Amino acid sequence: MNRRDFTTTMGAALGAWSLTRSRDLPREPIRVDAERLLRHFDALSAFGATPAGGVSRVAYTEADRQGREFVMGLMRQAGLRVRMDAAGNILGRRSGTQNDLPPLLVGSHIDSVPDGGRYDGNVGSMGALEAAWTLGDREIQTRHPIEVVVFQNEEGGLIGSSLMVGTLRASVLDQPSQSGKTFREGTAFIGGNPDDLATAVRRSGDVAAYLELHIEQGGLLEAANLDVGVVEGIVSIRWWNVTIDGFANHAGTTPMGQRRDALLAAAAFIEAVNRIIRSVPGRQVGTVGQIRAHPGAPNVIPGQVVVSLEIRDLDAAKIERLFREIETEAHRIGTASGTTFTITDTEIDTPPAPTDVRIRGMVEEASDELGLTHQRMPSGAGHDAQSLALIAPVGMIFVPSVGGISHSPREYTKPEDLVNGANVLLGTLLAVDRAEL
Amino acid sequence: MNRRDFTTTMGAALGAWSLTRSRDLPREPIRVDAERLLRHFDALSAFGATPAGGVSRVAYTEADRQGREFVMGLMRQAGLRVRMDAAGNILGRRSGTQNDLPPLLVGSHIDSVPDGGRYDGNVGSMGALEAAWTLGDREIQTRHPIEVVVFQNEEGGLIGSSLMVGTLRASVLDQPSQSGKTFREGTAFIGGNPDDLATAVRRSGDVAAYLELHIEQGGLLEAANLDVGVVEGIVSIRWWNVTIDGFANHAGTTPMGQRRDALLAAAAFIEAVNRIIRSVPGRQVGTVGQIRAHPGAPNVIPGQVVVSLEIRDLDAAKIERLFREIETEAHRIGTASGTTFTITDTEIDTPPAPTDVRIRGMVEEASDELGLTHQRMPSGAGHDAQSLALIAPVGMIFVPSVGGISHSPREYTKPEDLVNGANVLLGTLLAVDRAEL
Repeated sequence: MNRRDFTTTMGAALGAWSLTRSRDLPREPIRVDAERLLRHFDALSAFGATPAGGVSRVAYTEADRQGREFVMGLMRQAGLRVRMDAAGNILGRRSGTQNDLPPLLVGSHIDSVPDGGRYDGNVGSMGALEAAWTLGDREIQTRHPIEVVVFQNEEGGLIGSSLMVGTLRASVLDQPSQSGKTFREGTAFIGGNPDDLATAVRRSGDVAAYLELHIEQGGLLEAANLDVGVVEGIVSIRWWNVTIDGFANHAGTTPMGQRRDALLAAAAFIEAVNRIIRSVPGRQVGTVGQIRAHPGAPNVIPGQVVVSLEIRDLDAAKIERLFREIETEAHRIGTASGTTFTITDTEIDTPPAPTDVRIRGMVEEASDELGLTHQRMPSGAGHDAQSLALIAPVGMIFVPSVGGISHSPREYTKPEDLVNGANVLLGTLLAVDRAEL
Repeated sequence: MNRRDFTTTMGAALGAWSLTRSRDLPREPIRVDAERLLRHFDALSAFGATPAGGVSRVAYTEADRQGREFVMGLMRQAGLRVRMDAAGNILGRRSGTQNDLPPLLVGSHIDSVPDGGRYDGNVGSMGALEAAWTLGDREIQTRHPIEVVVFQNEEGGLIGSSLMVGTLRASVLDQPSQSGKTFREGTAFIGGNPDDLATAVRRSGDVAAYLELHIEQGGLLEAANLDVGVVEGIVSIRWWNVTIDGFANHAGTTPMGQRRDALLAAAAFIEAVNRIIRSVPGRQVGTVGQIRAHPGAPNVIPGQVVVSLEIRDLDAAKIERLFREIETEAHRIGTASGTTFTITDTEIDTPPAPTDVRIRGMVEEASDELGLTHQRMPSGAGHDAQSLALIAPVGMIFVPSVGGISHSPREYTKPEDLVNGANVLLGTLLAVDRAEL
């Protein structure tokens, strides 16, 4: 009995067929249709394609809307029942044998950053669709209904998935998104119903599990020559605004010794952040990505500089410790340079979102069955999975990003890794369906 | 015989009455009408007045145009013949006894930076007007015709004075000025004739000398408790653009050790500039005033940073030496951080403009006669005098800036220092008129 027949005939009956039991049997894992997956993936890349070979498919733009239409068309071809929830998330449903069970959600997003890459959320979206398509081809029945989901506007702050779990603050809806439209306008533009968002909300128990395949967006897998990343969780992210007040003065007439140069103090701060973050072992990262100097003229000593500070780690307490150290150093720099540092918390303060420990094991097993090498790792990037983790067990699968490049036209993942990822996703999906989570 | 009678009756006859001879006689210096000077100075401050107590009288704005009208009205009251040259510079002329001699120009500007102070060019403009007015009151005749000049748009790059000496590149005229208007449009707006600029040009020999009173804009005089700065020259100013190319990547997924963070490299550069400029004695200054980081998001490692670099000193060779050292250090930082530094010269490369050595002596003597303390010093700021230095001997007088603050609503010079400056200007003007430069 090959794996296909086994699953088709036995899967439903066995129900909570355990991981341990599955290890006892030699199995040939089901594989997706690699050619179809890559063809659809390439076709999706045309929506918002940029001359540099990337994709600019910012949420709520025409490219986004057209890309979404394309995906809904594919879902229909795959035999899924397609609908959009009021939040504008696309859902393609496949019935299970026990339709009173909550659905298994699997998916990602297809919106991109401006001038982004072709991979990012598209790999997981097309991978999830292909997994469901393969189940249909092979007439494999699952216990749970399966919903392939394409969340709206992940890049703008996990908008669609936050709406699904009911955590988006209402005031955000009227703020402008990257597209220029407010989130409310954008949600309506893509076909959602911002006046009826409550109907889109799912609560604990409404979702059996959520699985997401994604490119790593970092260089660890490639550097270690591994096929699959088994995501341990999505790191906590905290952002601060740091305002450095010095005194703006004439660059020609103010002697070097009489200056209170806010940019010079900012330079010392930026170096301190790097030094402190690297002073302890671990995978924590700290970044100053944004800087504005006022008044910002070549012939005026900057009187005020504002920089961003971001720290990420799976351990929220470690972030807090590192931040306190940076804060102390900032005030020391201020005293030494005649400037004042004011550090304010922003609303960006997401707790770590660990993946479900059992699903991690299922991802590893699915990889092993496919002969793929793997490693556990944190996700340094935010993902829709962290929203879903608030209401359901979640699992995440990473495939390698060449050069660790992401959010760039140079973002690249090899075709074989796309296929590997979809196969691991499919295997994990079936394992989760069988398990009692 | 008091000084007034002496000058009135003897001045014209004596002609090139020498400095040496003047030292032999006890003299009571002529003084301006302090009350009138301060009244007019305060009245001028109303044009473009800001709530913070400063002035925002950007060239080519309505406040600029109205301020200029006000000054022209005062010039007429003072008995000057008022005209505007095609470049939009205001000229108030007083005849001399030898009207075949080239005129003595004395003045400054009244335009301001956005949200600037009340002092800056207004002190010298009102001081020059008051000096001429006092000559009129006392019926003092000079050999040379005197032209009180208010140059247009000093803050925008010595526009009016550059047009007067014929050094403004034609292409600049069609670039936007701070007002939003192009320089051409702005020049027409204030009453100039941009189609007839050649008529405004003066060449070597067309101007006997140019004198300018200005606030120091730095804190040296106040710190040394001195009344007057005898300007040795206007420093050479060079600007460079420094582009630092790293690699933009995801701040969450890119480990600290795999980053090529352009902002971190920029921070090291900014600190190096400060260290190198301060590594040798002297009054040189070096400033990084402008910074832009791309893409400039808190969650993206900056892939490119562009900063300005400005160095000023009276000695152009010293600037070059310091720049070479900074350049070497920049490339060292680039190598160490996996980034690339590209440093390009800008068009801002003004040679030093030394003042006339004889006029320096006349400023000192005029100060001594008034019982005022003084010190020689460079001007770290650019001034219209540096344009005029290309065609005529120039002299500059500084009065103290409280706290060294400039280009700010907090800019302040004490009333007695305004009066002192105008008195020194008047005394110097008379000495220059008598001398054969």
